Amino acid sequence: MNSNQSFFRGVLIVLAVLFSVVRAGAQDKRVIQLARLEIDSTQLENYSRFLKQGIEAALRLEPGVLMLYAVTDKEHPTHITILEVYADTATYRAHLQTSHFLKYKTATADMVKHLELVPVRALMPMQTVGKYF
Amino acid sequence: MNSNQSFFRGVLIVLAVLFSVVRAGAQDKRVIQLARLEIDSTQLENYSRFLKQGIEAALRLEPGVLMLYAVTDKEHPTHITILEVYADTATYRAHLQTSHFLKYKTATADMVKHLELVPVRALMPMQTVGKYF
Repeated sequence: MNSNQSFFRGVLIVLAVLFSVVRAGAQDKRVIQLARLEIDSTQLENYSRFLKQGIEAALRLEPGVLMLYAVTDKEHPTHITILEVYADTATYRAHLQTSHFLKYKTATADMVKHLELVPVRALMPMQTVGKYF
Repeated sequence: MNSNQSFFRGVLIVLAVLFSVVRAGAQDKRVIQLARLEIDSTQLENYSRFLKQGIEAALRLEPGVLMLYAVTDKEHPTHITILEVYADTATYRAHLQTSHFLKYKTATADMVKHLELVPVRALMPMQTVGKYF
């Protein structure tokens, strides 16, 4: 290997290390939570409509909202869990002030019987947990 | 529009409808569940290592394993939730027989204090709940 090749190899290694450090840093800043809700059974259809609208708008309009995966318990359809992933705290705080979130929150206030927010930590980087998105 | 154009427009519309029906059918067949685990606190590091290996192998080797998103409760790190998405029942059954799953299951049998599997239904198609995967 001549000195030019050695030089470029060195540059590439430094860049690769920097990239992985930056990427690991971005993963660390993520705000991830599980929202566990119980919905008034007479309002479930209404609630679902508002939730879907809110999720669709947040993912479309807010680049830092990375995932809002809402599922309903098959045996207890009024029990809803949402896995929420935000790029960082600033994104999460901004999300709570958006017009689509406030619309969802106001419209569904009387439909939600119980809400629990559970801050969590991802065991693996987001890129490695799913595919076909 | 001449008759050729009308013909191709008709073909395109039929194809678009067929595509969306097939895609909706694929979504309906998904097997989605929340696995809620409590791990022996003295075994948490060990358990996490086996879980990560199992997830990595499943996503790499099984095309129908679409998501295995594992998170730990920040306040109670021994509480783990995994959001699991499989293409269909056959994929899920096959997954339970793979060598990487059986290795995980056997190795961690004594580390898991409690396991609850909650079958759920997605509120929205998978493509619309996340980005940057």
